[in-house]
Amino acid sequence: MTPFLQQLTQKLGADCVLTQSADLAPALTEWRGLYQGEAIALVMPRSTADVVSVVQLCAEYNVPITPQSGRTGLVGGGVPQGGIVLSLKSLNAIRSVDAANFTLIAEAGCLLQHVQEAADQAGLLFPLSLASEGSCCIGGNLATNAGGSQVLRYGTMRDLTLGLEVVLADGAVWHGLKGLRKDNMGYDLKSLMIGSEGTLGIITAAVLKLFPKPKTSATACVACATPHDALNLFQLLRDEMGDALSAFEYWPLFGMELVLKHKAAQDPFAQPHPFYALMELTSPDPQALLKERLTAFLDTALEQGLIKDAVIASSERQAAALWALREHLSEAQSLEGASIKHDVAVPVSQVADFIVETTQLCEAALHGIRVCAFGHMGDGNVHFNLSQPPHMQRADFLAEWARFNRIVHDQVMKRQGSIAAEHGIGLLKREELMRYEDPAKMTMMLAIKKAFDPQNLLNPGKIFVKS
Amino acid sequence: MTPFLQQLTQKLGADCVLTQSADLAPALTEWRGLYQGEAIALVMPRSTADVVSVVQLCAEYNVPITPQSGRTGLVGGGVPQGGIVLSLKSLNAIRSVDAANFTLIAEAGCLLQHVQEAADQAGLLFPLSLASEGSCCIGGNLATNAGGSQVLRYGTMRDLTLGLEVVLADGAVWHGLKGLRKDNMGYDLKSLMIGSEGTLGIITAAVLKLFPKPKTSATACVACATPHDALNLFQLLRDEMGDALSAFEYWPLFGMELVLKHKAAQDPFAQPHPFYALMELTSPDPQALLKERLTAFLDTALEQGLIKDAVIASSERQAAALWALREHLSEAQSLEGASIKHDVAVPVSQVADFIVETTQLCEAALHGIRVCAFGHMGDGNVHFNLSQPPHMQRADFLAEWARFNRIVHDQVMKRQGSIAAEHGIGLLKREELMRYEDPAKMTMMLAIKKAFDPQNLLNPGKIFVKS
Repeated sequence: MTPFLQQLTQKLGADCVLTQSADLAPALTEWRGLYQGEAIALVMPRSTADVVSVVQLCAEYNVPITPQSGRTGLVGGGVPQGGIVLSLKSLNAIRSVDAANFTLIAEAGCLLQHVQEAADQAGLLFPLSLASEGSCCIGGNLATNAGGSQVLRYGTMRDLTLGLEVVLADGAVWHGLKGLRKDNMGYDLKSLMIGSEGTLGIITAAVLKLFPKPKTSATACVACATPHDALNLFQLLRDEMGDALSAFEYWPLFGMELVLKHKAAQDPFAQPHPFYALMELTSPDPQALLKERLTAFLDTALEQGLIKDAVIASSERQAAALWALREHLSEAQSLEGASIKHDVAVPVSQVADFIVETTQLCEAALHGIRVCAFGHMGDGNVHFNLSQPPHMQRADFLAEWARFNRIVHDQVMKRQGSIAAEHGIGLLKREELMRYEDPAKMTMMLAIKKAFDPQNLLNPGKIFVKS
Repeated sequence: MTPFLQQLTQKLGADCVLTQSADLAPALTEWRGLYQGEAIALVMPRSTADVVSVVQLCAEYNVPITPQSGRTGLVGGGVPQGGIVLSLKSLNAIRSVDAANFTLIAEAGCLLQHVQEAADQAGLLFPLSLASEGSCCIGGNLATNAGGSQVLRYGTMRDLTLGLEVVLADGAVWHGLKGLRKDNMGYDLKSLMIGSEGTLGIITAAVLKLFPKPKTSATACVACATPHDALNLFQLLRDEMGDALSAFEYWPLFGMELVLKHKAAQDPFAQPHPFYALMELTSPDPQALLKERLTAFLDTALEQGLIKDAVIASSERQAAALWALREHLSEAQSLEGASIKHDVAVPVSQVADFIVETTQLCEAALHGIRVCAFGHMGDGNVHFNLSQPPHMQRADFLAEWARFNRIVHDQVMKRQGSIAAEHGIGLLKREELMRYEDPAKMTMMLAIKKAFDPQNLLNPGKIFVKS
């Protein structure tokens, strides 16, 4: 055992420093199989003080640190490339709930679902909602500035966080656990840390915003002739309902076909339609007549030809069945064969144009390619995913990855969009970031990285190709 | 004329480089008379390219730059201490409006009111609202992360901004004018620039968020026995109405007395009460029964003894008269003599405790001192302002400034609050920031300042005592 590991074990105890390959294996495995990590130890601190000890020792011995929590990321941000893995999973306390301030303090290792439950027990709502909420952790949500289906109404993880506790590269602790709505005491380092993917500091705890719990809701699924009709419908609905509109999801016929083929799901409509949208209204007002309002709105939309058909959920069970159509999309697509995925965003006003034009370009570039462009309309977020042609070899299709990245990302940037809407950069998009990001912004980012982490020990190799 | 000024004049034209003392005087004057500035020139660029030329020349000749726009700041952030004043007032175009994306692009010199009007003409709302909205500019709003009365519902200037164009210390331009709701392409430098008071870069334009325009509203003023009752009322109302609650302001009897004494205002109540609150509900839903809901809510609150009396505005004129009571507070207090002011924030749950305890401490510290603690309940923001004892000399009272800063700010920090809620640091609170801010955060801030502005030419002397 090296002197570094000996000292680490002395400080934290042997049960917190795992070096056997069987113990290490899960921490090195990327769940989609895109990357294989390597590390000399999996370190499991039990407290912020433990994290300080680890970071100080790593600085002394020049050992890289890859933070991990739920390991559900989609861009390889938690894959170690040497050094130690620092798992925050044991820092999993809800430190306090201040219902009157609409806040709670959660440690980085808390499951997102536990935070949702703690808010619920206080009679409030923590609105971040992701497919992986049963296994992802707050630390990862913060590191990647997680998004999800409720961003339209409540914002991303950055918007949902008021304060942080962070261990810095030299072992100093920033005690920033403030639960304030207004605070202009200097620079906004909270927003800087959130979304920095563990490259600027180790977030150990956060003050999260809570909201009044919705007491009424209404859910509907509609069929449209085109993406443009769906976009117009969204605009009208948002104009009229404002923040009562909490979600507006969409997917194409091909996506519906995949879900009906591969999952136990039922088509809510009597016939196929080119495009679908799912909308949800919520209100903390127990008397809000959301279903009546939505029905009247959709009646008008039907008369005007903006939608072809509509189903309004008459029960929570029906609403869940409509949501399942949307939530099954990713899995259904993976059951159909290989896919090349793009998590991108464009201005909301350009979502329909982007989908139509980029679909044409992709179809022209490879005969038989099948586009499943779905996502969150109100955020301009498009999961522009490409399924392989039915009779092509899987490996042959995946060999086209870079070519389709170029087609799709060029279309995104032409519209001043983002090639990393909600999943982050990690290892997967470092080269694309360098290609597309504004040079002045890259220079500033590198300057901050160097100032905060001069030894380049905090999640090295992530975000930057070379830092 | 120095070689620097000669070159500057050659590049921008003589009408954009003012050096006569009569032209310079307004740019050196702090409107409250707290500071006197000095500068060698007032420079008025007409474009982002002009700003680049100025910044490059200043870097070459090592000349400090103090950015200015509307000059309505409250902490001396725009007061030059040598070098040039860079006025953004000529960069005053609304570059574009994208109603379907709920955004517009405004240059730094745009009046806040003009931005509000441009949004209104597009059928939308830009919600930032300040007493100075007719004279303050977007550049200053961004530099100070401005707040105001609608933060409860819409957030601060940082929350209202999606993208920036910034000229950096070396003359490079960060082209970050993206109008996206989700964007995880690297670090959040937008939030870092906003609220940095011109010390990290010169913001020349911004993408601002727009919202559906409210179509119904309801306004009420209530009388309470204590600040705690007002806080409880706020909690209940927010639980029930969620984001329909767009403002909840409060002030004490002493504040009401000042307004009634010094301004043409009428008491809406038949007798004096210890504490008052003003609430506003809005909705984009034209059928929302806000007034009926508010009436029923206040009836219940009256029965339960949570409020002593209530007035619901029956017209826009009446609503404006109720708002005037709140908006006249600052001016009325200045007409009553000298005051020592504190713009602070605490967790919402502690606003009432903070007001009661800090009032007692101040009254015990100086016989006859009169506390006017008013502000924005939902933001935890307290304008904790002290009026001089009636028969004390003005100068004698102002000599107590530091002693009362200590009493009030110690109480704020005991509650994990902020000593700079919405006005910023500037020159006024540099020493207090150094005293109270977390040392690790100050170290990070200084590291960023040094990395972004190694010559210390961007608004030097602001935020930091020594940078």
